[in-house]
Formats: sequence, structure tokens, C-alpha cells
Amino acid sequence: MSTQNTQLNPAQIQAEAAADGQSALQVTQSLKSHSLAFIEDAGAGIRVPVTEISLEPSPNGRPNKPFRTYRTAGPGSDPVRGLQPFRSEWIAARADTEPYTGRQRNLLDDGRSAVRRGAASAEWQGGQPVPRRAVDGHTVTQMHYARQGIITQEMRFVALRENCDVELVRSELAAGRAIIPSNINHPESEPMIIGKAFLVKINANIGNSAVTSSIAEEVDKLQWATQWGADTVMDLSTGDDIHTTREWIIRNSPVPIGTVPIYQALEKVNGEANALTWEIFRDTVIEQCEQGVDYMTIHAGVLLRYVPLTANRVTGIVSRGGSIMAGWCLAHHRENFLYTHFDELCEIFAKYDVAFSLGDGLRPGSTADANDAAQFAELDTLAELTQRAWEYDVQVMVEGPGHVPFHLVRENVERQQELCKGAPFYTLGPLVTDVAPGYDHITSAIGATEIARYGTAMLCYVTPKEHLGLPNKDDVKTGVITYKIAAHAADLAKGHPGAHERDDALSKARFEFRWRDQFALSLDPVTAEAFHDETLPAEPAKTAHFCSMCGPKFCSMRISQDIRDEFGSAEAQAALAGVASGMREKSEEFLAAGGKVYLPEPRVPAES
Amino acid sequence: MSTQNTQLNPAQIQAEAAADGQSALQVTQSLKSHSLAFIEDAGAGIRVPVTEISLEPSPNGRPNKPFRTYRTAGPGSDPVRGLQPFRSEWIAARADTEPYTGRQRNLLDDGRSAVRRGAASAEWQGGQPVPRRAVDGHTVTQMHYARQGIITQEMRFVALRENCDVELVRSELAAGRAIIPSNINHPESEPMIIGKAFLVKINANIGNSAVTSSIAEEVDKLQWATQWGADTVMDLSTGDDIHTTREWIIRNSPVPIGTVPIYQALEKVNGEANALTWEIFRDTVIEQCEQGVDYMTIHAGVLLRYVPLTANRVTGIVSRGGSIMAGWCLAHHRENFLYTHFDELCEIFAKYDVAFSLGDGLRPGSTADANDAAQFAELDTLAELTQRAWEYDVQVMVEGPGHVPFHLVRENVERQQELCKGAPFYTLGPLVTDVAPGYDHITSAIGATEIARYGTAMLCYVTPKEHLGLPNKDDVKTGVITYKIAAHAADLAKGHPGAHERDDALSKARFEFRWRDQFALSLDPVTAEAFHDETLPAEPAKTAHFCSMCGPKFCSMRISQDIRDEFGSAEAQAALAGVASGMREKSEEFLAAGGKVYLPEPRVPAES
Repeated sequence: MSTQNTQLNPAQIQAEAAADGQSALQVTQSLKSHSLAFIEDAGAGIRVPVTEISLEPSPNGRPNKPFRTYRTAGPGSDPVRGLQPFRSEWIAARADTEPYTGRQRNLLDDGRSAVRRGAASAEWQGGQPVPRRAVDGHTVTQMHYARQGIITQEMRFVALRENCDVELVRSELAAGRAIIPSNINHPESEPMIIGKAFLVKINANIGNSAVTSSIAEEVDKLQWATQWGADTVMDLSTGDDIHTTREWIIRNSPVPIGTVPIYQALEKVNGEANALTWEIFRDTVIEQCEQGVDYMTIHAGVLLRYVPLTANRVTGIVSRGGSIMAGWCLAHHRENFLYTHFDELCEIFAKYDVAFSLGDGLRPGSTADANDAAQFAELDTLAELTQRAWEYDVQVMVEGPGHVPFHLVRENVERQQELCKGAPFYTLGPLVTDVAPGYDHITSAIGATEIARYGTAMLCYVTPKEHLGLPNKDDVKTGVITYKIAAHAADLAKGHPGAHERDDALSKARFEFRWRDQFALSLDPVTAEAFHDETLPAEPAKTAHFCSMCGPKFCSMRISQDIRDEFGSAEAQAALAGVASGMREKSEEFLAAGGKVYLPEPRVPAES
Repeated sequence: MSTQNTQLNPAQIQAEAAADGQSALQVTQSLKSHSLAFIEDAGAGIRVPVTEISLEPSPNGRPNKPFRTYRTAGPGSDPVRGLQPFRSEWIAARADTEPYTGRQRNLLDDGRSAVRRGAASAEWQGGQPVPRRAVDGHTVTQMHYARQGIITQEMRFVALRENCDVELVRSELAAGRAIIPSNINHPESEPMIIGKAFLVKINANIGNSAVTSSIAEEVDKLQWATQWGADTVMDLSTGDDIHTTREWIIRNSPVPIGTVPIYQALEKVNGEANALTWEIFRDTVIEQCEQGVDYMTIHAGVLLRYVPLTANRVTGIVSRGGSIMAGWCLAHHRENFLYTHFDELCEIFAKYDVAFSLGDGLRPGSTADANDAAQFAELDTLAELTQRAWEYDVQVMVEGPGHVPFHLVRENVERQQELCKGAPFYTLGPLVTDVAPGYDHITSAIGATEIARYGTAMLCYVTPKEHLGLPNKDDVKTGVITYKIAAHAADLAKGHPGAHERDDALSKARFEFRWRDQFALSLDPVTAEAFHDETLPAEPAKTAHFCSMCGPKFCSMRISQDIRDEFGSAEAQAALAGVASGMREKSEEFLAAGGKVYLPEPRVPAES
């Protein structure tokens, strides 16, 4: 395994900068200390991109070695052309898939406005990949390979990325405790793993609605979200151009893409839940499998008999997918077709390696409704469906709430882990109070940290606009950074190997007044630097040995440095350890040896 | 006990609006549904201000009664004149205090620039209260009265405010498990209680430094902070005009004011920690007692022998007070004078009812240093000092960290509660990771919720500028709202009586598409409304039965309403309960009775 460094491709940066004044890549460029580097396994032909942060030397002149960190931004792409399909070779080499003539383009996939116009508002002009599927009789999921004892390139990539043994990756996949969402039709994506033995991941939702936004904006949000650290992105579009927006997103996405296919199916029937059929849904799923969606939220646990359990809730059913299916069940007086056709879905997903994200359509929409009969009844069914998917070697994660008061959060993940035999839990927050619309990234990050600490594998972000409107670009960034905080805090709390290294590096930089390093090591260097500059804008202040809180005359950090100079040596510490354990003689030795180092006086209570 | 409503005084609003384009009172006025109301105990002559939020009727026409909530903003004041000293009568009536000629004004109290100019930059022109102190032989602390079995007006006020029995207030005070910070020289303040049996409180820090800000700005921050819900405010000024800034703040503050007197003492000796003496410190404490400071942070636990324990920390000593005292100890090779003179401090505090906030000068400044020997050694000493203060009937709270990874947070409060026999814990966050400067209001709110859940009584806010600069007005608001979230989430998690009522009222409003009520009930109505208006700005959208997330055509809340209409009745629920428990007959009865109400089909697993 070797490593290699490279600066970002200037042509890419220029293209981006021209397209968007506030582009993700430009911001990275402004952080001169950040560069794209690679960890390579040359033997296997794998290189994993990481962000390398160069650091200044300490005040004592000692160099600080560059800090390398997990990178989700990918190599960067020109949105019009998309990313290189670098996984295609791996997929082809397994010789268990075949190209085929996919489903025909149907303008209704993009909604009625596309039908009227004869095109989507901005057709995808990049490469037109030919869809692949498993050869008959084959299953092409990472779970399947893992269970056969096969180590795939995807698993090797993930092991390098997580800095762990590849056998851990394989065994967790085989047991269903982790997934690598990796549709064979999304060969542009960099393999990543979701499971509680690995780093906690975060998802960012994007997508248009009937009321707002354009395709270009959504691609921009994708790049922006992955730039700041989103591990997966869900395209939750519900407006026009759903198919084409998704095409642009997938072709440009270095991270797995998730969807909720019932949203598009609903658009195809003019928004009338009653008009939905299994056939329309199935066709939509195939459409999305062929495009390369990596995981799909399927609300198959909203059973007819559970619907009345929500009637006296404070906030009923708040999941859109859940209420669509509840509405359908009510209208037809029949069982949820996602449940009755679940095995067919498993057969389809097994052909493309699409992972289930089993939707919690009955999740609580208020703290009053948390952990109630409806929610837990659905969870029982999700556990049953997990087992069924595993019979097909299809990868599964299970979605969780929602709104849950802090003391009830832990029960959610422990119950899910037990019932679903360790299948990765993927939760939306949860929000620990309902009283702060406008700040629900915060109310939910509190619950997210708690639930991830006890085993949630991926956290779905919540932005400040939750409950109020669709997130703009600033909201996406705030949501992502806030969830990076929750995920990282949980990694620290779990004692995940190496998680503390970034904290320690930043704290050391802070203590040594290496301001630029403090910014560079932070989750959002741009904001850290801007906040600093508000009160001490001059460039020299970035190397000043004080800050605006105390001013130049008094500085606690400086006093601490004096203490370290005096007591920090190994000899001084050894002697002090002697004092601490009451060994008077040792302390006298130390005193005798001491020069300017002194010992504390014994405390005389009468003196006080 | 009766209640009474009043609109805000228009003269006050005008004065404010003229002084500041973005004043606190203006914002309140813009929320037409918010008004100042009072809960009265006419017999005792007490009225407690509350904020009353009027609500619209539900869509079914049923009225929603106004929601009343705890209010920290006070009655509002003209900053130039200050607030009415409404507690003066109560204090005088106890006949255990006397007015006296206080300490002479010394221009150095305001720093060298005031000495040069012959005045502070903006002298206090309002009333010049004559200081009071206990008559010789008397102790005038709320703890003293409580231990004597006396119910004071302050206790009655607090019981009304917390909606609890006054005997709970008295007994918690007597046991030292709660404090009412209430210097007899701050008669403008509305009594509030800090203790784990009561609502979790939050503190906001304000104050200038050598680098920034003016007196007017600090008074504005005070009003702004209490407007948004700060329960106490600490004036941490370290620059010019310290005495006079504090005078303006106290005379205008409806909440208790805390300080760290060592900061001012240090200014008096030109910033040279070595030059500090007990006499200068004592004089500063008396100055502040006479002005009306309600609680003071005293770093008496930083013992000489603990200092070396910090030498090999990642971030040494980060508390300013802690490092000042450590610096002094090192310079003189003597024990901390705050420790050796602690009993004298107790005698002084007992004469004015100033509460100790025992500072944690050795708190960890990075997650790496959390729960270490230095921190816990100091806590042992703080426990000892708590007992000593209680011997003088002086009220005490104990300060806590700082930076602590999430899984180590709980140990902090449990250890403090055990060692300090339930004395209120008052913590700064803690921050659960070091990697997010610019977002430390969030990293710390996560830790704050956890630590408050297990018994921390008051949370000191952290603003987005922590580690980077001094907070401006926006930062103060963000810090306060974020900490209201943490405190309230902890109240919910503790099952504090009534805490869930606001969540339930807001969730009900949300479910019923009463947008204006959702805004009005939120912790920050201004931001909630602004975010909503970004995507759906038109006034009709505030009553629209949909939102920008799903658009007008599909709405999960509407489907839920349909479910409720169908299944929500008591009869339907009773029948469904029968089904749920397998009582087939009952369900058939229900079917027979049913009209359009249907029963779910029994699930047939073979059907799937």
C-alpha cells in the first residue's frame, strides 16, 4: 500500500468557478492547506481519495505531519459530463452481469410538463450508459459475495477507507450488520460502508418539489453536500423532471444515491394515492434500478391493521411515504402492495445490488407520539422484512425516527438492533423537542448523537428549514456540518479507533496558537476563519499568541505553556507522581534535584 | 391567586425603538400574539410576569386556550433609568439589613483610561442606590431563611413561577440543593431558582474585552439575552469601564447577574497576575457586593499542588480565572489566596446574599483532557468548599466542564452531585468534540442536554464564536436559543411536570396547519416565520393546508386527518383495542355498527 498526492485539476476548478460563483471546489481551493491525496493498494489496483491537511510547525520548531481525513467529495466533476465510471471494470470482471436494452424512455417519468414540452427542462447530455443486470441465476449483491467468502474490490476499497481489516468488512456484510450500497449501474460511486462497526455516516436529502428549484440547483446541492461531508445523498424530488434530475445527480455523484420511489410513482398517477398500483410502482423501481439508484426507501411496514393505531396520535402519520401507503390501504381496504409484493422487490434488487432502506412510515412526528404502539408495530414488520430480504442476499438497512424525547432515544436503537438482528439502523435525528422550528438541525443533532452512540449506523440530516420549507444551499451545508458533528461525537463516544486524532490535532493547534491549522482542521474552515476575522481581521492576528476573548495582555494559554515548561518533563512528572501518591521521600529527592522547579506546599487546613 | 394581562408599555417600546433599530421589545411587539401577563398571589402582594401566547381556534372551530410560559425578559426598561427596585420593600420588611456609606468611587475601578479621562466613557446617570448590608450578627441569605423555616417573598415568587409548592422551594434551599441568587443590592431582579428539582436554567455571558465593544452594546446584549430566555447573565468584562458597565447592566437586569471578580482585580493591577493580593481582591468583591452582583465565580479550588497535574495535558489550563490563580501560585510559590481566605469570603457573601459559583479553573479544554486527575482533584476541593460555605448559610453552586466526550459526560454530574451533596451543578456545555469551531453552540448543546438530563441545574451557553472571538448580538441570540433547546430537552427527558405542554401545543398547531400558532409557540418565532416565508411568502400560505415540502397536491397531514376522522372516536378506538388484543367478537360488533368505518383485513402471510 502506498500513498500519492495531487492538487485538484485546475480545468475542473475553472469550469466550476465559471458555473457558480460560490462553488464547492472554489472554497476548497481557498483553503491552501487542503489537498486531494490517495491511499493506494497498488496490487489490487485501488486508490482511495483522502483529504490531506498540511500543518505548520509547532512553536518549538517541531514539524507536525500532515493530517489525513476521510473524503466524500470525490475527484470533482464537470456537471455536464459527469464522473468517470471507475467501478465498471470491477463489475465487468466479475462476469456475472450483462448489458441489456433497458426500459424505454417515457416522458411521463419527468412529469406532465415534460410530456407537454416533449423534453425535460434540461436533458442529460453526458454519456448514456447502457444498463446492466445480473445474468439469469446470479445474485450480484455485496452481501451475496460476502456470504460466498468472496472479497470484492468494493470491500477492499472500503477497508482502506475505514483503515480496518477487509475481513471485518466481509464478515459484517455477510452477517447483514453492514451494507455497501453500490448499484452496478452507478459505477461512478466510491464504495462506502454503513454499519455500526464502522464510522458513523450521514445522509443529506436534496430534491425539488412542486413549489421550487431547478435541475442545476439540485446538482449543485449534491456537490455542495458531498464537499462538506455527506456520505450518501437522497434525491427526494417530487416536482417536475424527476427522472432527468436524478440522471444528472447519479452521473455526478461520488456517493451512493437513495430515493423514495413511491414519490415518483405518485407523480405518474397525478398525485392520486388511490390510483397507485403495484405495476406502476414496479415499473418505477426498474426505471430507478437501471439509472443507478443505490438504495430505495420502501414503506412496506405500513400494514393496513396498523393504520388505525395512529388515529389518536398528536400528529398522526407524518412520513409522506407512510401516509401515501396508508391512504392507499384506506382507499382500497387492502393490504399494502409493497408488503404483499415484497419478494418480487427482493428479486429485482438482487439483480442490481440495490439496498433496501425499510421506511418507517409510522414514525412519530412529535415527541408525544414517540415509541408508541403504531411505531413499534411497524418495527416488528420491518424486522420480518429484513429477514426476508436476507433470504435473497439483498442488503438492508432500517429507518428510524423522528421525534423522540431524549430519555426514550436509546430504546429505539436497542430495540431495532435486537429485532432486526443487527441490520444497520438509519435514523432521522431524532428531534428531542418539538418547540424549536428553525433550529431543528440542533434539536435533532442532540438525539442523533445519542442514537448513534448506541449503534445507529447512518444519520439522516435535518436542516434548519425542517418543518418550514425546502433547504437552500446554506441550509444544506449547515445540516451536513451539524450531522458531521453528531456522527463524529458518536464515534468518539464509541471509542472508534482513531476517531480522537482529529480532536487532538486541532486542540494541539489551538493550544499552540496555530490559528490557520485550527481553521484547517475544523469541519468548516471557512466559517471558523470568518468568525475569527470578525474581531481580529488583520493577517498577523492569525499567528498572534492571544485572541479577542482575553486580549493581548492576559492569556491563559501562555500561562499553561509556562506550567508545561516547568513541570512537563518526564522527570518532573515522575517526581510529581511520587508526591501525588504520598511518597514524601521522592518529593524531597525531586526538591533536591530541582533547580527552579518547586514543589507545592503541603496544604495546612488551619491556614485557610 | 388571580391572573392579569397587560400590553407592553408603549412609551418603553418607543424609547427602545429609537435607541436601537433591532431592539428586543420591537421584535416582541411584532409577534402580535405574545403579551405580558401576570400570575398573582394577591394575598402575598406578588405578581410573576409570564408570556401569554394567544392561539387561533382549531379547524373544527374549537378554541385553543392561550399558552402561558416562563418569562425572563422582565417588564422592560429604559436603559438610561433602569428597572424599578421592586424587591426593596421585601428586603426592608425583613428588618435585618441597613443602608450604609459604601466604598468610595475609585476611578481605577473603571481602568486606566477612566483615570486619564476622569470618568468612564458613559457614566451611569440613573438612580444612585445606597448600598445595604446585613445588620451585625445577621445572615441575610435565602439559605439562612430557609433553614430557619422562614418562607420569604422570594420563595413565594419562585414557587409561583415554577408552578410548584413553596415548601419544595424552601426545603431544597435549606438542603443546599437549590439557590435563589438575590443580592439585596440588586432589588430589580425577579427571583429565580437554580436546582435540579426545578426547570433547567441557562446563563448567557456578555461583557467587553480589551479589544472590543461599548457599554451601550453590553446593555443591549443583556436585554437581548433575557428577551430570548437567558435566566441569568454573567458580565465577564475585562476591558475598560468594568465598574460602570456593570452598573448599567445591574440596574437594567431583571435576572441575576454573575461575575468573575478576579478579572476586574487583574485589571486593577495592570494585568500582572503576580501583583494580585487578597486585599485587592477583597476590595473588588466588596465593590461588586455593593453594586448588586448576585453570584461570583471564585476559583478557590485551583490549589498549588494541583497545578503540575495539568502539565502534560493537551491543552493545559484554559479557564482564565484558573490560569490567573495558577500563575499567581507559581509566581509566589504559595497557596491560592482564594482558598486560604475562603472563610472571609463566606462572611462577606453572607452579609449581601451573594452566592458562590465555585469555579472549575482546571476544567478540561479539550476532549483529551476530560475527567483527568487535575479536574477531579479540583472537584474534591470544591466539595470541601461547598461544605464550608454552607456552614455560613451561604448559597453555593459548583461549576463544571468544558470539553468532554459524550460517553464521559454523565460521570461528571453524578460525581459532582455525590461529592457536593447535591449542590447545584452549573456547566459550560460540555462540548462533545473539539473539531467544530464556529459550531460550538451545537457541539456543546449535545453535551449540555446529556449533563442536564442527569441533574445539572444550570447550563452556561456557548455561542458560535466560542474559541474564535467575542459574540455579537446575533451570536448571543443563537447561543440563548440553542441552550433553551438543551434545557428544555433535558426537562422533557427528566419528565419535569408540564414540560411537554409546549411541545404538545406546538405539535397540535403544526398538525392542524395553524402556521401562525406554530411560529408563536416556537422558541424563536421570528426565525421560524422568516424561514417559512422564504419559500411560501404570501400571507395566505400562513393558513394554507400544505407546505413547501410536499406542495399543495399531496399532504401527509391531510391523510392523517382523514384517518383520525375515521378511527379517532372513542367507540372506534375501543373496538380497535378489542381487535388488537385479539377479541374477534368485539371487532365484529364494531363492523356491524360501522357504517363507512371498516376494519383492517386480517393479515395473511401467504398472500405476500
